[in-house]
Amino acid sequence: MPDTALAILNQPSSDVPPHRPGDAPFELVDPAAPQLSVLDLGATRGDGIFEAFSVTAGRPHSIDAHLGRFTRSAAKLDLPAPDTAAWQDAIDGVIAALVGIDEALVKLVMTRGIEGDADARPTGWVYGWAAPDYSRARTEGISVVTLDRGYRHDAEEVSPWLLLGAKTISYAVNRSVMREAARRGADDVIFVSSDGFVLEGPSSTVLVRRGNTILTPGTGLGILDGTTQGELFNWAADRGMETGFELMTPDQLGGVDALWLVSSGRLVAPVKAVDGVTRDMDTERTNDMNAWLLSRVS
Amino acid sequence: MPDTALAILNQPSSDVPPHRPGDAPFELVDPAAPQLSVLDLGATRGDGIFEAFSVTAGRPHSIDAHLGRFTRSAAKLDLPAPDTAAWQDAIDGVIAALVGIDEALVKLVMTRGIEGDADARPTGWVYGWAAPDYSRARTEGISVVTLDRGYRHDAEEVSPWLLLGAKTISYAVNRSVMREAARRGADDVIFVSSDGFVLEGPSSTVLVRRGNTILTPGTGLGILDGTTQGELFNWAADRGMETGFELMTPDQLGGVDALWLVSSGRLVAPVKAVDGVTRDMDTERTNDMNAWLLSRVS
Repeated sequence: MPDTALAILNQPSSDVPPHRPGDAPFELVDPAAPQLSVLDLGATRGDGIFEAFSVTAGRPHSIDAHLGRFTRSAAKLDLPAPDTAAWQDAIDGVIAALVGIDEALVKLVMTRGIEGDADARPTGWVYGWAAPDYSRARTEGISVVTLDRGYRHDAEEVSPWLLLGAKTISYAVNRSVMREAARRGADDVIFVSSDGFVLEGPSSTVLVRRGNTILTPGTGLGILDGTTQGELFNWAADRGMETGFELMTPDQLGGVDALWLVSSGRLVAPVKAVDGVTRDMDTERTNDMNAWLLSRVS
Repeated sequence: MPDTALAILNQPSSDVPPHRPGDAPFELVDPAAPQLSVLDLGATRGDGIFEAFSVTAGRPHSIDAHLGRFTRSAAKLDLPAPDTAAWQDAIDGVIAALVGIDEALVKLVMTRGIEGDADARPTGWVYGWAAPDYSRARTEGISVVTLDRGYRHDAEEVSPWLLLGAKTISYAVNRSVMREAARRGADDVIFVSSDGFVLEGPSSTVLVRRGNTILTPGTGLGILDGTTQGELFNWAADRGMETGFELMTPDQLGGVDALWLVSSGRLVAPVKAVDGVTRDMDTERTNDMNAWLLSRVS
């Protein structure tokens, strides 16, 4: 069985013409071969959007939430609306090609397409691959550093052209901060707004527990609405816990009963240290959350 | 004669191995054919750098300044240092293939390469094409809007992981603000820092004249060191004018004697309106600057 699969969409949005009229909705192609033009605005301008999610034993998780966020990201970038049925078909095709892989990851990318294309057709692809082994992060925890993201917590509302809250492929800073974390001996990052509020990780959502309540900073702060966080609010409700949204400062993180970074691939990673200060992990709830997420059937 | 040309570099940096050992330093390939992998971190993360410059009658302009900035951008992103001799060769190859084009543009892109490549070899290409006709912007001027860039003017110094001052391909915001400008009926944008200082355009440098002095906001503000601005300081010195760097507020732009956005392709575009308020253009100096830039021999 191949451990990667790639589908190229023929018509990523029904608002624009297909790339190859009359052809199949998607084509499974060789992931190792060149597939993109150097004129693709994804490659020259980071002008596009993406989503990534996990697939356990052939079951994609939270697919509707991811396709919903994909569609909202497209709107924020003035991209044509993704044809979610076409994307779902391509996802199914990729997952079918990955049979035999226990834990896989699938990424959707839609770019603004080839610069100068009179039809303004987006480029769209779905790529699937075997997930790395996340068990260490899930059980032993991760150390994080807090880093200034440069924007005020209200920048998304005040300046929508900054595209905050959209999941774009202009992710050079999200990768740069991971190199800065490594230089500081840490595994991951929690972004802080320029006016001092906890935001999100570069590829995760911040979740905390205070007593019987699970909290996250919430949307509208220039951060993504976390699909995994959304599900974990259901996990919490199932267990009789309260959930909510709350602005927090980095100092306040020191006082919470548990701190996690949660994301679609690595799932729930307990934070064992912030800026070099170790903290307790809530191992029981961490294990329960990860088991619950891995056993989801939708 | 073809009006586009594309060279793929075999070894964009001498710090890492070549892609195809023993092959030529670059290969001229079909720009219309797919050349990039969907696993290229340029296409999935906007993780790379670029430069663009004009070529008049086969002569590239300010090539050393552009290669210098390319190298500084690579360092800011912790990318391997570009092999400037190899890039120069590929540039020469592209320009040779574009013979017969009076005004061309050439773009260099270096990405972090294929995700998971054990050799961490960057992907590098040089693309050349016939320049659009910029004469209208150069003679009739452009209208601009000021838009908040979200960062304080000191973010580059305080938070280097934000990659401000590097010319990255994570340009989704630089394109988003152009759509916002169009919605407001304007041609271009002047970014303003969140604490109220004039920065730069999304693909240009702000230049003003106050009496006999030519001023620009200067570097260290999270903006690029403008190659065209640097040359125009030489133009000004040739004409006995003073030059300098000065922090300015948007309000102060109303009081200057001339305002331009300058860049390597469009060259000098006089600003005829800021946020809907028309202003005088300095036609004589604009024409002189553009003629001087177009006649450069290096």
